[in-house]
Amino acid sequence: MGKWRVQALRPTRMDRSAEFSRWKAQCLSRADLSRKGSVDEDVVDLVQLLNAREQFFTTSSCAGRILLLDGGMNGFEVQKQNCCWLLVTHKPCVKEDVVVALKKASGDAVLKFEPLVLHVQCRQLQDAQLLHSVAVDSGFRNSGITVGKKGKTMLAVRSTHSLEVPLSHKGKLMVTEEYIDFLLNIANQKMEENKRRIGRFYNCLQHALERKTVTNSHPKFKEKNNPTGSPKKERKAAKAHGKCIPEENEKEMENDGCDDLGISVTLFPEDY
Amino acid sequence: MGKWRVQALRPTRMDRSAEFSRWKAQCLSRADLSRKGSVDEDVVDLVQLLNAREQFFTTSSCAGRILLLDGGMNGFEVQKQNCCWLLVTHKPCVKEDVVVALKKASGDAVLKFEPLVLHVQCRQLQDAQLLHSVAVDSGFRNSGITVGKKGKTMLAVRSTHSLEVPLSHKGKLMVTEEYIDFLLNIANQKMEENKRRIGRFYNCLQHALERKTVTNSHPKFKEKNNPTGSPKKERKAAKAHGKCIPEENEKEMENDGCDDLGISVTLFPEDY
Repeated sequence: MGKWRVQALRPTRMDRSAEFSRWKAQCLSRADLSRKGSVDEDVVDLVQLLNAREQFFTTSSCAGRILLLDGGMNGFEVQKQNCCWLLVTHKPCVKEDVVVALKKASGDAVLKFEPLVLHVQCRQLQDAQLLHSVAVDSGFRNSGITVGKKGKTMLAVRSTHSLEVPLSHKGKLMVTEEYIDFLLNIANQKMEENKRRIGRFYNCLQHALERKTVTNSHPKFKEKNNPTGSPKKERKAAKAHGKCIPEENEKEMENDGCDDLGISVTLFPEDY
Repeated sequence: MGKWRVQALRPTRMDRSAEFSRWKAQCLSRADLSRKGSVDEDVVDLVQLLNAREQFFTTSSCAGRILLLDGGMNGFEVQKQNCCWLLVTHKPCVKEDVVVALKKASGDAVLKFEPLVLHVQCRQLQDAQLLHSVAVDSGFRNSGITVGKKGKTMLAVRSTHSLEVPLSHKGKLMVTEEYIDFLLNIANQKMEENKRRIGRFYNCLQHALERKTVTNSHPKFKEKNNPTGSPKKERKAAKAHGKCIPEENEKEMENDGCDDLGISVTLFPEDY
């Protein structure tokens, strides 16, 4: 039984690694099927950094955008296939852009800011764990791993840092232009913060990958399973200098007042 | 080497299982540290269903709520620790509730609807995979697995189904009462939809756990690694009857227009 297990394990691992390389080659050789047809400028560096490592490849990405949708009945996602896109931009936008676009609204128009969404296929679970830890520590707190039934391992990088604001009902504008101006100021600031987080993610990932390389060549190295390599005290100090640390206050906001047994989600990759 | 691996594996697995049981006993015996001090009514059944299974226990939960925050400078999460909670409710709320609460606003008040957030610790990765698949198929598309460095495996159940609307700036109301009425109508509908998804999650989970039990007693049973047990065709049919199927249109909304190589996130747990 034990012998059988050892024999079974090794070829499986080799197959998995070769299979992953095939998937990666296939995926990266395919045409970009997105409407835009190219990787967003603000994530090009991050996408290239990931795709340059044999253990990762990106399957989809959106750097972050402001969009104005029409027809999402009361903003129900379930209705979204009937939506019309009135405006989409990956750059800061001004009141006039939205006011003009809103003139075409016939249903319930909703303005959204969507932060970075990035899907990265990972060769092994431990590769996804490292990437997950870095993503969370960079502020992408809602990131999570998916492991499919055939073992395909994917990290979805997500942030909590969004905005969803109904603006019109059955074509009738429900807010003032002054409010739209105020709202876009907030949306643009969120876009800037999102860019900063992408930059932090890029830097933290580079450090984590370097550390991992050092680590793997010294198996007993203490940081082996700690991608960001910063114990709590150092993390507190790092936080003061805007380095890679979880944004615990977000977690507090999310669960305070509800049933929370005090386990910090943002710290799982470090503490568990 | 091979022999060493087999010897090392077995006690580790046994330890892990015993360790999980200890964690579970500890966690469930602890006092509820949340502000509310109890599990939200709308998730009690789901939480009980999970905690009744030896492979799961919940570490935190919020059924979904409407909240009004003050002081989040331009809604920046990074500022949230300075926030004041003007209103929190797990029930539908009316304009008057918000209008009264807004009188206390001195900073930038933001109205949010937050859907279910549930954190479930899982004994093994495959337990998390099953739960993840069920969560995604029930509409909780942003759910994801976290695996800590010591192997603690957690599923975070999250939905995309939120709302975040700035209402006032430096204490000055930026919208009309008519808009607040319109907005709360949407927030209340989102709360209802969130409840439906919780119900769907409960039902899908029951079926998946029953199927798994049958499966485990018949190792060759085809559905072993397919928690929802529904091939694509059946899934399409099921969708028409409001059964457990991913809400693919949400995914389309999320990445259409950006770099998307066409892999559906909602289908990972099924397809990969």
